[in-house]
Amino acid sequence: MLRTHTCGELRLSHLNQTVTISGWVQGVRDKGSLIWIDLRDRYGITQITIETENIAADIVSLARTLGREYVISVSGKVSERYSKSDKIPTGEIEIIPDSIRLLNKSITPPFTIEDDTDGGDDLRMRYRYLDIRRNPVRKNLELRHRMAIETRNFLDGLNFLEVETPVLIKSTPEGARDFIVPSRINQGEFYALPQSPQTFKQLLMVGGFDRYYQIVKCFRDEDLRADRQPEFTQIDCEMAFVEQEDVLQTFESLVSYLFKKIKGIEVPTLQRMTYAHAMQYYGNDKPDTRFDMTFCDLTSTVKGKGFKVFDEAQIVLAICAKGAANYTRKQIDELTDFVKRPQIGCTGLIYCRFEANGSAKSSVDKFFNEEELLKWKAATRAEAGDLLLILAGEETRTRKAMSELRLEMGTRLGLRDKNTFSCLWVIDFPLLEWNDETSRWHAMHHPFTSPKPEDIPLLNTQPGQVRANAYDMVINGVEVGGGSIRIFNKELQAKMFELLGFSPQEAVNQFGFLMNAFEYGAPPHGGIAFGFDRLCSLFGGADVIRDFIAFPKNNSGRDVMIDSPSVISQEQLNELGIVLNNTGNKD
Amino acid sequence: MLRTHTCGELRLSHLNQTVTISGWVQGVRDKGSLIWIDLRDRYGITQITIETENIAADIVSLARTLGREYVISVSGKVSERYSKSDKIPTGEIEIIPDSIRLLNKSITPPFTIEDDTDGGDDLRMRYRYLDIRRNPVRKNLELRHRMAIETRNFLDGLNFLEVETPVLIKSTPEGARDFIVPSRINQGEFYALPQSPQTFKQLLMVGGFDRYYQIVKCFRDEDLRADRQPEFTQIDCEMAFVEQEDVLQTFESLVSYLFKKIKGIEVPTLQRMTYAHAMQYYGNDKPDTRFDMTFCDLTSTVKGKGFKVFDEAQIVLAICAKGAANYTRKQIDELTDFVKRPQIGCTGLIYCRFEANGSAKSSVDKFFNEEELLKWKAATRAEAGDLLLILAGEETRTRKAMSELRLEMGTRLGLRDKNTFSCLWVIDFPLLEWNDETSRWHAMHHPFTSPKPEDIPLLNTQPGQVRANAYDMVINGVEVGGGSIRIFNKELQAKMFELLGFSPQEAVNQFGFLMNAFEYGAPPHGGIAFGFDRLCSLFGGADVIRDFIAFPKNNSGRDVMIDSPSVISQEQLNELGIVLNNTGNKD
Repeated sequence: MLRTHTCGELRLSHLNQTVTISGWVQGVRDKGSLIWIDLRDRYGITQITIETENIAADIVSLARTLGREYVISVSGKVSERYSKSDKIPTGEIEIIPDSIRLLNKSITPPFTIEDDTDGGDDLRMRYRYLDIRRNPVRKNLELRHRMAIETRNFLDGLNFLEVETPVLIKSTPEGARDFIVPSRINQGEFYALPQSPQTFKQLLMVGGFDRYYQIVKCFRDEDLRADRQPEFTQIDCEMAFVEQEDVLQTFESLVSYLFKKIKGIEVPTLQRMTYAHAMQYYGNDKPDTRFDMTFCDLTSTVKGKGFKVFDEAQIVLAICAKGAANYTRKQIDELTDFVKRPQIGCTGLIYCRFEANGSAKSSVDKFFNEEELLKWKAATRAEAGDLLLILAGEETRTRKAMSELRLEMGTRLGLRDKNTFSCLWVIDFPLLEWNDETSRWHAMHHPFTSPKPEDIPLLNTQPGQVRANAYDMVINGVEVGGGSIRIFNKELQAKMFELLGFSPQEAVNQFGFLMNAFEYGAPPHGGIAFGFDRLCSLFGGADVIRDFIAFPKNNSGRDVMIDSPSVISQEQLNELGIVLNNTGNKD
Repeated sequence: MLRTHTCGELRLSHLNQTVTISGWVQGVRDKGSLIWIDLRDRYGITQITIETENIAADIVSLARTLGREYVISVSGKVSERYSKSDKIPTGEIEIIPDSIRLLNKSITPPFTIEDDTDGGDDLRMRYRYLDIRRNPVRKNLELRHRMAIETRNFLDGLNFLEVETPVLIKSTPEGARDFIVPSRINQGEFYALPQSPQTFKQLLMVGGFDRYYQIVKCFRDEDLRADRQPEFTQIDCEMAFVEQEDVLQTFESLVSYLFKKIKGIEVPTLQRMTYAHAMQYYGNDKPDTRFDMTFCDLTSTVKGKGFKVFDEAQIVLAICAKGAANYTRKQIDELTDFVKRPQIGCTGLIYCRFEANGSAKSSVDKFFNEEELLKWKAATRAEAGDLLLILAGEETRTRKAMSELRLEMGTRLGLRDKNTFSCLWVIDFPLLEWNDETSRWHAMHHPFTSPKPEDIPLLNTQPGQVRANAYDMVINGVEVGGGSIRIFNKELQAKMFELLGFSPQEAVNQFGFLMNAFEYGAPPHGGIAFGFDRLCSLFGGADVIRDFIAFPKNNSGRDVMIDSPSVISQEQLNELGIVLNNTGNKD
C-alpha cells in the first residue's frame, strides 16, 4: 500500500493515527536539528517533520538527499504542529515519519513547479507533463472535468441520450477543410474526420432518438489563428419535435445550471437580441453586454455642416464613454492610434467632451459650435463628465471598427470583469451571406439550417433577406454556442443545396443519405453545439482555451511534446498506396 | 409547442387533460365508424381513437391518408379506454383528438419497424436511421448511455478525473497498424490516430493527475475479422501510487457497481486465476467460468498400453461432460467433426461413457479394459452418467482444441446462459512472448508493462519466464478489460525496448518524451482499459458488438449508410502533397 491518505486530507481529527502518504517533494528546509519536507500531491501539501536527533539515521540521511520533485512515500504518525499555518488546509498537523521510501528521483525541472512559474509558453508545452503539475493548470482541467460531468448529468435528467457518432466519416467540401484518413483496405479512398456530428445527429432524430447529446471531439484543418486548435471539443445536442423556443429554453437551463452549480452564480433569464439589433447597436453578432455603450447613429445630426469627413461618410457613429471626459490628450491619442491600426483601418477618431460645468469641447470645434455639440449630447443621451467617441465612413467597416473601439473602451474603463457574466441569445440570423470571392451564397450557419417559414417565399427573389431559425448563445462577447432548427423536408433541403451552388449530383453524392432519410418520416428537429474548450475557459475566467486542454497543439498544429506530426515509414505509405509529392507545391 | 407529453407517459391520472403528443404512426386500423391510430415515439405507444361520426371531417379524412411511419402531432383529451390493454403502459387511456397535424410523410420503409424485423443485416445497416427506430436497437443504445453515465459517476465519486487526450497523435510501429492523417501545414508529415491513450495517460500520472479515466474512441487499422470495428471505445483508466492489488480492487468495484446498478445483480468477489492455471485447466487465458469441465491431464495414466495415438502424443487431455453419457452416436460424430475442422485441426476424438450401471464404454476398448477405464474415471472424478471426451497430440495445439471443445460442450449442455455472469481476474501473465515470424520477443500486453520485481533478474537469462504485473478481467469467457502496473523507471523502460528489438535511436524517436518524463519524478502507476462496446454487448446479453454501436462499419471497414470511405478531390490531394499510387500494389 503506497498511501492510506492523500497529501490534502489530514487534519487534527487524525491525530496520532499512523498513516502513509506519497507525493512529490515541493521543498526541503534543513535547520540541522530539524528538517521539514513539504510533500505535494494533487490534493494538497503535508509537512513532514524530522527531529534529526530522535529518529533513525537512515531517515535523516535520505531526507538530506531529497531534491525538488523527488517522489517519496512516508509512513508515520499524525502530530499537532507547534507553529500552525492557516495558509494550507493541513496546516495544523505534521507527520513524524517512521520510514521514508524513495520511489523515484528527479533531475532539475526546466521550470519551477509553482503557481507562478518561470517557464515560458514553449518550454511549458514541451514539458506539458510537468506544467500540469502546477495548481493553476490542474485546476483548469479539474474544472473541465466538473463541467463535463455536470453537463452530462443535467442532460441525462432531461432524458437526453449520449450517443457516440463515428470519427471515421466522409469528406464533404462545404464548410471548413477536412482532415482526411487514407483507407488501406479500400485503396484510393479516404475517410474524413468530422467537423461536427451534424448529419449523424440529424439521422438520430430521424431514427427517433428524440434527445441526443455528446461531448465530442471535432476536427478542422484550418490555417490556425491564435487560440484555434485543429481538434476541439463540442457539447453537441439535438432534439426532435421542437420549435426554436423549446431549444432556447432547454439550453438556457443547462447554462444556468452550470453557472449555479460550478460558479454559484444565478443567471437571470437570457435576453433575446436579434442579429439586426446586435449589428445596429454593437456592430457585432456577439455583443459583449457586460456594459452598455451602444452605438448612436449621428449621421443625420452631423451632416451638412461643412465637415468633409462627416459629409462624405456613409455613416457617422458615436459611443458614449461614461465619465471619461477627463481623458488626457495622451489617452485620446492612444485611442486614435488604436482605430488607425491596419486591422481596424480608420483614418481618424473624433471626440467630444462634455465637461462637468455643462460645456462641450470637441476635436471638430471648427465645424460644430456649442449648440450643435449639445444636439450630439441629446442624441447620445450623454451626461456631464462623459466622452463621446465618433467614427465615420463606409457603413460595414465603420460598424466593425466601432465595435472594436467599444470593446477597447470597455476594457479601459474596467467594464469587462472576467468574474461578471452577461449571457444572451442572438436570434434571427440571416440564412445566407453573399461571398464575393466565390460569387455565390454561402450558408451563414450550415446548409441544414431552416429558413423562417414566413421568409421562405423570399428564397427565390431576395435570398439575402431570408432569416434563419438560427441562434447563438453569447456570453461576455464570446459565442459559446450556436444552432438552428433544421430543414426536415427533402425538397427544401434540395432547394437549399441548389442555392448554395451544389449541382443535384453533388448534393446526392455528398448528402444523399440525409435527403433519403428525410423521405421516411423525418420529424421536426433542431439543436445546438457549444464550444466546450471555450466554455471552460470562460468559466475559468481565462482568455486562452489552450490552458484548458490537457495536451494542446501549438499555432502550427504541432504537439511539441511528442513531436507530432512526424514522418512515417515508406512501408506505411506503401500499404496505403500513397506517394509523397515532393515538389513542395501547396496548391 | 409540438408536444406536451411523450407517447409513453399518459395514464389514467391524466384523465380529461388536454395534451399534445407527436410521433410516428405505428399502425392504423379503420373500422368505418372507428379509426384507431397507434402513435409511437422513443418512450412508448399511445392510442388515438377517432369516432368518425363525432369528429370534424378533416380529421377523419387526414386519418385515412396516414401510412406507417408518417409523422403527426395530435392534440386532444385523455380519455379512459373502453377495452383496456395491459400490454403497454398507456393501455388504460386513449386520446380523443381535437386536431391532427401532419408533420411529415413517409414512403414505405425497406423493412418493417418492428422488434422482429424482416430486414437483413445489410439493409438494416444501409438504412441504419430506420433500424435504430426499432425497440431492440434503441434499447441497446440506451443501455450504452446508461453504462457510460454510471461509469463516469462512479469513477468521479472516487476522485477520478476525466481528461481528454489528443486524437491527432504520432505513429508508433509497435502494436497494431495505425490510421494516419496527412498534415497539410507540415507537408510530408503525418499524425496518427491513437490505438489507445496509453502514453498520454502515463504522462498524466507523471503530471500528478493521480486518478484518470476517459471513455474514449480508439483506432486500429487491422484486417477486420467478424465483429471488429476500426474505431472502438474504451473505458481507459490509470492510477498513481498504486500496486496491482489497488487497481484490481478499484475496478472490481466499478464492475460490481455496474452489475448492481444496471442489471440488479450482486457479483461475488472476483476469483483470481493465474495465467498458468488458466492455460492448464482451460487451455485459454480467458476462461468461461460459468461452468467447470476443467481439463484433466491423462498423459501418464494412458501411455504404454499400445494405443499409438496416446503413446505418441505429447499430451492427453480429458474433459468430463456431466450427464452426457447418453450422447448418441450422431452427437458424438458431430463433436468429432467439430474437432476435425481445419480451425481446430485434431485428427480425432476419443470418448468414454460411464453408464448408470457402473460400466464404462470407450471408443478405444481395444486398448483399454474396464479396469483401465475406471482409472480414467477416478482421475477425472467422473461419475456414473458422465461422458469423457479426450484429445491427444502436441501440447499447445491440443490445449487450444480442448478449449474449443469445452466451450462447445458448455453450449450444448446449456451451461452458458447469457443472463448468468461469471467474472474473474486472470493475473501473472508472461511479460514477453516469442514470435517465430519476427524471431524476437514481443510484449504480451505492451512495452510499458512492468515485470514482477522478483522476476527482473530473469530478464537477461530467461525472458520467457518473466511474469508481468498484468491482469485481465474476464467475464463469461470474454476479456472485457486488461491492464498492468507500468514501468516508471527510465533504465528499465530502455531495457524493455532493447529486449523488444528497438535500437536506442528508435526508442528515443518514438518514446523519447515518455522516457524523458520518467526522469522528472515519475510515480509508480498502473491502470486498465475496458472494451466498452464489448462490455455493453455483454450486459445486453448479445454476442455482436455492432448492435451496440449507433453507426457501425461493416467487415470491410465501410459505412454503407454514408458510403465511406470514398474518393476525395484532386484539390484535396494537392493541398496535402500526396499522390495516389495507382499500381494497386498493397505491399
